[in-house]
Amino acid sequence: MKASIIGATGYAGVELVRLLACHPQVEIATITSESSTGENLAAMYPHLSQRIEQNLESMEQIQDIAAHSDVIFIALPHGHAMKIAKVLHDSPVKIVDLGGDYRFHDTKVFEQWYKVKHEDPDAKAVYGLTELYREQVAKAKLVANPGCYTTCSILALVPLFQAKLIETTNVIVDAKSGTTGAGRSLKAGSMYCQVNENFHAYGVATHRHTPEIEQIYSEFAQEEVIIQFTPHLLPADRGILATCYANLKPGVTAQEINVAYHAMYDGEYFIRLRGQGVCPEIKHVRASNYVDIGWQLDYRTNRIIAMSALDNLVKGAAGQAVQNMNVMFGLEEQAGLKQLPIYP
Amino acid sequence: MKASIIGATGYAGVELVRLLACHPQVEIATITSESSTGENLAAMYPHLSQRIEQNLESMEQIQDIAAHSDVIFIALPHGHAMKIAKVLHDSPVKIVDLGGDYRFHDTKVFEQWYKVKHEDPDAKAVYGLTELYREQVAKAKLVANPGCYTTCSILALVPLFQAKLIETTNVIVDAKSGTTGAGRSLKAGSMYCQVNENFHAYGVATHRHTPEIEQIYSEFAQEEVIIQFTPHLLPADRGILATCYANLKPGVTAQEINVAYHAMYDGEYFIRLRGQGVCPEIKHVRASNYVDIGWQLDYRTNRIIAMSALDNLVKGAAGQAVQNMNVMFGLEEQAGLKQLPIYP
Amino acid sequence: MKASIIGATGYAGVELVRLLACHPQVEIATITSESSTGENLAAMYPHLSQRIEQNLESMEQIQDIAAHSDVIFIALPHGHAMKIAKVLHDSPVKIVDLGGDYRFHDTKVFEQWYKVKHEDPDAKAVYGLTELYREQVAKAKLVANPGCYTTCSILALVPLFQAKLIETTNVIVDAKSGTTGAGRSLKAGSMYCQVNENFHAYGVATHRHTPEIEQIYSEFAQEEVIIQFTPHLLPADRGILATCYANLKPGVTAQEINVAYHAMYDGEYFIRLRGQGVCPEIKHVRASNYVDIGWQLDYRTNRIIAMSALDNLVKGAAGQAVQNMNVMFGLEEQAGLKQLPIYP
Amino acid sequence: MKASIIGATGYAGVELVRLLACHPQVEIATITSESSTGENLAAMYPHLSQRIEQNLESMEQIQDIAAHSDVIFIALPHGHAMKIAKVLHDSPVKIVDLGGDYRFHDTKVFEQWYKVKHEDPDAKAVYGLTELYREQVAKAKLVANPGCYTTCSILALVPLFQAKLIETTNVIVDAKSGTTGAGRSLKAGSMYCQVNENFHAYGVATHRHTPEIEQIYSEFAQEEVIIQFTPHLLPADRGILATCYANLKPGVTAQEINVAYHAMYDGEYFIRLRGQGVCPEIKHVRASNYVDIGWQLDYRTNRIIAMSALDNLVKGAAGQAVQNMNVMFGLEEQAGLKQLPIYP
Repeated sequence: MKASIIGATGYAGVELVRLLACHPQVEIATITSESSTGENLAAMYPHLSQRIEQNLESMEQIQDIAAHSDVIFIALPHGHAMKIAKVLHDSPVKIVDLGGDYRFHDTKVFEQWYKVKHEDPDAKAVYGLTELYREQVAKAKLVANPGCYTTCSILALVPLFQAKLIETTNVIVDAKSGTTGAGRSLKAGSMYCQVNENFHAYGVATHRHTPEIEQIYSEFAQEEVIIQFTPHLLPADRGILATCYANLKPGVTAQEINVAYHAMYDGEYFIRLRGQGVCPEIKHVRASNYVDIGWQLDYRTNRIIAMSALDNLVKGAAGQAVQNMNVMFGLEEQAGLKQLPIYP
Repeated sequence: MKASIIGATGYAGVELVRLLACHPQVEIATITSESSTGENLAAMYPHLSQRIEQNLESMEQIQDIAAHSDVIFIALPHGHAMKIAKVLHDSPVKIVDLGGDYRFHDTKVFEQWYKVKHEDPDAKAVYGLTELYREQVAKAKLVANPGCYTTCSILALVPLFQAKLIETTNVIVDAKSGTTGAGRSLKAGSMYCQVNENFHAYGVATHRHTPEIEQIYSEFAQEEVIIQFTPHLLPADRGILATCYANLKPGVTAQEINVAYHAMYDGEYFIRLRGQGVCPEIKHVRASNYVDIGWQLDYRTNRIIAMSALDNLVKGAAGQAVQNMNVMFGLEEQAGLKQLPIYP
Repeated sequence: MKASIIGATGYAGVELVRLLACHPQVEIATITSESSTGENLAAMYPHLSQRIEQNLESMEQIQDIAAHSDVIFIALPHGHAMKIAKVLHDSPVKIVDLGGDYRFHDTKVFEQWYKVKHEDPDAKAVYGLTELYREQVAKAKLVANPGCYTTCSILALVPLFQAKLIETTNVIVDAKSGTTGAGRSLKAGSMYCQVNENFHAYGVATHRHTPEIEQIYSEFAQEEVIIQFTPHLLPADRGILATCYANLKPGVTAQEINVAYHAMYDGEYFIRLRGQGVCPEIKHVRASNYVDIGWQLDYRTNRIIAMSALDNLVKGAAGQAVQNMNVMFGLEEQAGLKQLPIYP
Repeated sequence: MKASIIGATGYAGVELVRLLACHPQVEIATITSESSTGENLAAMYPHLSQRIEQNLESMEQIQDIAAHSDVIFIALPHGHAMKIAKVLHDSPVKIVDLGGDYRFHDTKVFEQWYKVKHEDPDAKAVYGLTELYREQVAKAKLVANPGCYTTCSILALVPLFQAKLIETTNVIVDAKSGTTGAGRSLKAGSMYCQVNENFHAYGVATHRHTPEIEQIYSEFAQEEVIIQFTPHLLPADRGILATCYANLKPGVTAQEINVAYHAMYDGEYFIRLRGQGVCPEIKHVRASNYVDIGWQLDYRTNRIIAMSALDNLVKGAAGQAVQNMNVMFGLEEQAGLKQLPIYP
């Protein structure tokens, strides 16, 4: 299988390179970067030395790239994928977009939160949270890979929404992400001396992952769910922890909660239910495609605090993209993704 | 003025030494440690070399220590201070306890959360959140210095409770602390390789700072407030950020919120209102006695997200203890506490 | 192939588990820990959840363990392996010892630096720096896996000693290691708050890796080399950088240096010559078995500064142990070790 | 006393602001920034909120600034100070330049290493390593504040050069600096994700602090000393550790070494001799003006390893600048610099 990566020099792109280079059934075809066309990727990222020989190309001839690829991963900022996928509507190539363009059933929601007009509103994209939409992903030509915060937040609570164990109001997701989540662009807020020994929230009440989480929560709850979502910047490279607060419906028991989680996730290779009373840690999933989920019930407040941890670059981006590719092409779903977390 | 420190080798104790050694009106009298009696503090903590010559003594002769001290700071785990203060009831020495023993109006609450019988239930202690109880502190013989999380959480929301701008239900405080908050004892969870590049919650639904925050919130709200409090461990030395969620009462405006904060805090040297839309950062207060407060209103959810940042060892412990001492002895409240934050 | 790990709960042991669990030809047989016998490894190290089901056993019945293992890795502090290997002299099991017991040709050197009597002085062990002793390793029953600092230091300079391009006096190796190098035991110097934002040397003039480096330098130089070796503790989890200083012999050219490195390392999968003027970075090899080497010539001082970087837990311990196992059993040398470095 | 800061927005500039704002005899007059003229410094650096009200001005009217200042600190990249000081030759204002322009007795050395023509070669500047040149500093109008690496490296070895206890050849200084040393400009190498969990050398054989160290070493040795100097980038905010290697002259004893250090430094407030066998740590001097020095003798190699630690922004820049100012104006040398290190 031949895979090409559009936008290979961002953190998600280079993580795709890392994973695909070790994937047993994949060959990396074309890697592109508009700002570094012609450069050697391993020269920019020496950790890839002696393993990735390709030079970066331009995506201008996207039809040619598609013609010699089975799958194209798009790892660009939002607004680009909709142009690329539109052009490739009639190509047989399959596409996994790691950006936000195709994540919303209602393109109006996209336009409202992303402040940009959607240029491909009629595309049929599948939302690629693999564990939840595996069957649709298997048949998809175009998969919208979920956001990092959203994967983490969604997986923590959808079993409880589906089982109708929690209220749909007063849901709060307080999330914390490592600094790779801020991307590779040069900005003051990403400097070592501003991140190290520091911690703060950002994008309060305005972060674009909010409506994406709400869309899936609402779907599983079968009613509209409006949440409060607050991201924070962690002094760490990788990892997201979402601390999710929801009020229990009257009379809900610990046993019912436990059953709901296991009913949905038993058999899922990449989801590890750590159980009640366990606080998952981001380092326990580092550099792997795992999501660890634990929870605590507070009978004093009649609330559940569900916590989930993942690596934002793997299950939160490139790993889930590969997982989706595996499903789309009928490969073993874990292929290329069995690496254990790096600890310590 | 002569100040003694009971328990000088813990992080709060040694931070007291740092602050008192530079306080213009204080001389450090006795410093104690039961586990390191006879040792030199600067040998254990070389950052104090050439400045702190005292050897550590035992607190066994506490009456003698009191006799040559104007003030005693107790920086021991809970359960010890109530024994010491009880013995010193009739001594003229003033006491600031940095532990939990005297923080609760109702000792039953203490006994329930701390799982230990209170041995000095009739003591008259003042809760030393200086900005809120300055007048009582000024007259106190025994001050219960607040917890680190509690100072941070309380200051973020009490103006809104007092002004009756927020609901008393569904209040959630999601807090994150640097690792000095875990103390200096050897435990696996405090090892570098377990904390670095990691992040997780702990003490979910059970942390002892919960009832302390509720006590003060309730007092200012004039009705019982039950909160959800979740602490997390940050890969950083110092600093607490509390992200506090509260539902707005109907019709509350941004202007009213702003007025409430300024009404309570204008003129407070150590509280810096960073205003609406600003996310305070723990590094901006590092090693100082400041508390930075910012907030965001979310009209979509009708909720306020109030954020406060402080240094857990300074305003969250030793700094506020010194501030209380200053008030108790009629010194300038900022004496010895004017150091600017260390940045970067 | 069946592999057992004696001492599976230390950092090197658990890294062996990580690597062997993904090795295509290996099944983990027995894992042992004397202090945690009977416990589940994944309960202690949750990053292994759902992947490692074994409980920890005791090594008391080492003959039984050997009987159902093809290879045994010993990941214990020095002094233990010589007892185990002695007992297993007549067993067909092959052994890779990650400790210091068998690294020295002259057991007197071991006894002098390690302050312990050698109990198995007649054993025939091969020094397992794979790239330098591949043929001997292939035939060995007992391999002494090199130390982390030593692998890094040796690989940086042996091509120059062999080609007689550098003087054998005034060789200085200034090395820096991540904190996993200090092991998993609870000690004050490994606490987060003592390591974070800190840096210092340790073991100056006395570190046990000194004679090990000297042994191999001397062998390649064909004369005795006495070095100055100074290790430092880095505020990072993993990684060693060795900055090696050597005086050039008269008239040596950049070209000769370059030729010497390439003559020895071209074709080596795990050694990446980054070339003159390049400063290798520990993050570029993190969690991989690579060693990156760069160097700078200073014509002003007539000296070469050679720099090498590796991951102390992989090429510096568990990775090289697996590489040796591969060679000992005639497997592909890279089997189970092709994972790319984790970056960022 | 009125002090102005030219270039107040760099890390050294803002550290000057921190120190001067708490100096008992100093009032900050003018602070300048050409790139941020008109902005409020506390808006850029919120840790200064409520304490620094000044707006940033331009340095264009430097004569005016000088006219209402007693002292001017220049905290700009090299090449600027020589223009400013030249213009102010006839002004009574005293100047402390934190850059490299005036550090060299021989401007040719400056021009060779800094690759720029010196425009004020006849200026009489005093090299402001206060402990070594206190008397000259006291009378100086223009002080060249030493570099961060240079202060650290010089103080570690000059007592031994002066006492003629070490050879002048084969001197190697292997130094490591926190990331504030790289300055505040946006560059890839200073991004959090490139510095965190990383470590590498830079500027090998070419760093500009080399000739500065050599100048002072040579002066104290009374013969030319050529050194090897290698800086490395630490994943930490602040702190420099210099590990300095020198060969002992024949027959030199530990006692002689000890005497040499004490002869030069006893009575120095900011130099803490930690003694033989002690490895100083950068965290023990953090945010303070202290230099901690320890050493180890290796009789096996006949070498001394001297280690010194300081905070690059304080004793390595702003702190020493204030110390020089104190000496220049006859103030207590420690005024404004008595803050204890921040630990942990």
